[in-house]
Amino acid sequence: MGEPSRPRGFNRRRLLLTGGAALAVTTTLTRCGRAESATAATGFGSNTEPFHGAHQGGVDTPAQAHALFVALDLVATPDRAPRDTLASVLRLWTADAARLTQGRPALADTEPELAARPSRLTVTVGLGAGLFERAGLAHRRPDSVTELPAFSTDRLESRWCGGDLLLQICADDPLVVAHTARVLLKNVRTMTTQRWQQRGFRSARGSDTSGATMRNLMGQVDGTVNLRTATDVDRLLWDDGAGQPWFAGGTVLVLRRIRTELDSWDELDRTSRELTVGRRLDTGAPLTGTHEFDEPDLDAAENGIPVIPPNSHVALARHRHDGERFLRRAYNYDDPPTDATTDAGLIFAAYQRDPAQQFVPVQQRLAASDALNPWITTIGSAVFAILPGAADGGYLGQSLLE
Amino acid sequence: MGEPSRPRGFNRRRLLLTGGAALAVTTTLTRCGRAESATAATGFGSNTEPFHGAHQGGVDTPAQAHALFVALDLVATPDRAPRDTLASVLRLWTADAARLTQGRPALADTEPELAARPSRLTVTVGLGAGLFERAGLAHRRPDSVTELPAFSTDRLESRWCGGDLLLQICADDPLVVAHTARVLLKNVRTMTTQRWQQRGFRSARGSDTSGATMRNLMGQVDGTVNLRTATDVDRLLWDDGAGQPWFAGGTVLVLRRIRTELDSWDELDRTSRELTVGRRLDTGAPLTGTHEFDEPDLDAAENGIPVIPPNSHVALARHRHDGERFLRRAYNYDDPPTDATTDAGLIFAAYQRDPAQQFVPVQQRLAASDALNPWITTIGSAVFAILPGAADGGYLGQSLLE
Repeated sequence: MGEPSRPRGFNRRRLLLTGGAALAVTTTLTRCGRAESATAATGFGSNTEPFHGAHQGGVDTPAQAHALFVALDLVATPDRAPRDTLASVLRLWTADAARLTQGRPALADTEPELAARPSRLTVTVGLGAGLFERAGLAHRRPDSVTELPAFSTDRLESRWCGGDLLLQICADDPLVVAHTARVLLKNVRTMTTQRWQQRGFRSARGSDTSGATMRNLMGQVDGTVNLRTATDVDRLLWDDGAGQPWFAGGTVLVLRRIRTELDSWDELDRTSRELTVGRRLDTGAPLTGTHEFDEPDLDAAENGIPVIPPNSHVALARHRHDGERFLRRAYNYDDPPTDATTDAGLIFAAYQRDPAQQFVPVQQRLAASDALNPWITTIGSAVFAILPGAADGGYLGQSLLE
Repeated sequence: MGEPSRPRGFNRRRLLLTGGAALAVTTTLTRCGRAESATAATGFGSNTEPFHGAHQGGVDTPAQAHALFVALDLVATPDRAPRDTLASVLRLWTADAARLTQGRPALADTEPELAARPSRLTVTVGLGAGLFERAGLAHRRPDSVTELPAFSTDRLESRWCGGDLLLQICADDPLVVAHTARVLLKNVRTMTTQRWQQRGFRSARGSDTSGATMRNLMGQVDGTVNLRTATDVDRLLWDDGAGQPWFAGGTVLVLRRIRTELDSWDELDRTSRELTVGRRLDTGAPLTGTHEFDEPDLDAAENGIPVIPPNSHVALARHRHDGERFLRRAYNYDDPPTDATTDAGLIFAAYQRDPAQQFVPVQQRLAASDALNPWITTIGSAVFAILPGAADGGYLGQSLLE
């Protein structure tokens, strides 16, 4: 198998700032200008995201269209320490992910043709809080990696909770996600059992090149407030290693499966919905603004009545101070229903330095009084230490295990 | 809600001939030339497929990237004849699909923003063989619409079989598929129960603009042999009404869920795989050729040994005469596994005038001796009469029910 050519001049920073939309525009302009672009000539399949570096991909990477989250548990074997099994899994995943993300077949890839067009594939690996103890690494568990407190509105189902290991696979092409999952899961099948899989999607890449924020299946613009500057990302997303030096460059993922109660939501009239959310449904603008990215004015009132109700989702989800912010990277899910018309909702992925300071206080406010609560139910929850990135020649988790 | 502008000069014929790839190229060239294209400016979300006409969309429409197949059963109610319930369902679906496919919200659409970018949405409706009797329409059932004979290799699971009604929803954006399913299913929830849902995907639109045929999750190029000319489509795909005049313009769908046994397939070396399939894995070319679309030479031999083994998949799947051909429009599936590493396979959708003459003889040969059989298992099967298209102002099934 040859190595596919990669587009030159791929501007990651621009993508980060404006979302995937910029790429199509850049490409088109290039084609109209002097040079042929490899991307435009053959499609975006040849686009890659870096694998090696201080941080793993799939976190501040502009969200790809498709995501698969798999939680696994380590198999206990009498002849091998869990720590050694863990190291084997992480080495295998690193070797294969380093190749697959760059459009090269995995080692001993049995379907190498499916690896040729990675479509911005990222593979992101995390460790559950409980694994540290099981692997004899309790003293190296970052304080930020711990189970969440109970929230009164949660209706957790064990089939969507927990896990020793997280494997997050994202790409703009679902075929790439499927092949990557196949390779990475089969290589560790004697050492792990799968606990759950969650598949999510956003609007297809190229469907809307205006740069609009994604919509969820309730029709809302979702993810307007996010970390967008390098300063925010450095301060609020990536661990600095002050607590656990090995964890510098890592982050903490809170993954929540939030079912939307569409049957009752659909009975609510449009004005009531907008008051519930605190934003306009058409533009995503706060009720005090005209554009999506306008700052909500929580103090604005008309005839003494707040324009944005104090218990609206926006009013409560909004950070009370700068340190409560985190990176949102949610995906929709829509699975075959068992006993309803629809089984849909949001795979809410929140990345941050410390959930106790960032996600938890926000979620406590929401659980206490979010007007949206009757129409959303959190049925799954898990926390993972997203490992620091791997250096070229190293492997994910090396700073923890060596 | 305003009506989104639709791109002019959308060349359906070119798309039909070359697959979705042509669109991106056309669009790019247009941008470089004199006129701004709405598609290029805002993304492919604004692309539409026609709803009204002699045939339903979603059959000879170039396959979209995402598909959802839902089978439903009519609910028996003491106060209403099944035929009347059926008519109500078909009228509701027609009214909403006519709007949604054109980028307009459904009537009383509760999430109208999700309807604005249809991304070549098609909605295709079919009736199961058993429904004709249940609805007092046994005398109007086309002879071609009947249960398939048993095949020795089938391992059918009832949860993937049968159904009174088929709702097939395809689009290049999974968000559109989800919204459309939500609208169409909730509107009929008092009149129907859902029997099964199957979700499928191909490579994302825009990932590969070379026009290559899709690959399945075994790594094979899949769907090379297909109906490609207007003459073939008229003769082999669309019913001519000779048996049942109301069915003119309809077709018959055989939908098979084929699980791939990837764990054992992956143990087979590459040469053995190619001999099993009869094609090269890299290019999809027959073992007697160099390009995907080269005709397999089933008589070619080297040292007296056939180059393409007589029991290879290609040798047996190939039509013995022109009348055995049918339209293939398969999708990959990759679902959360229950007790294996992977639960993946193919949703094999075959459309034709008469399965007894087209699909069945081919499948009988394959069941008898296909070398690929150890690695594929058909676990679901259903046959549906795909209704003729609806005229503007009419509804799907009108020629049957009036």
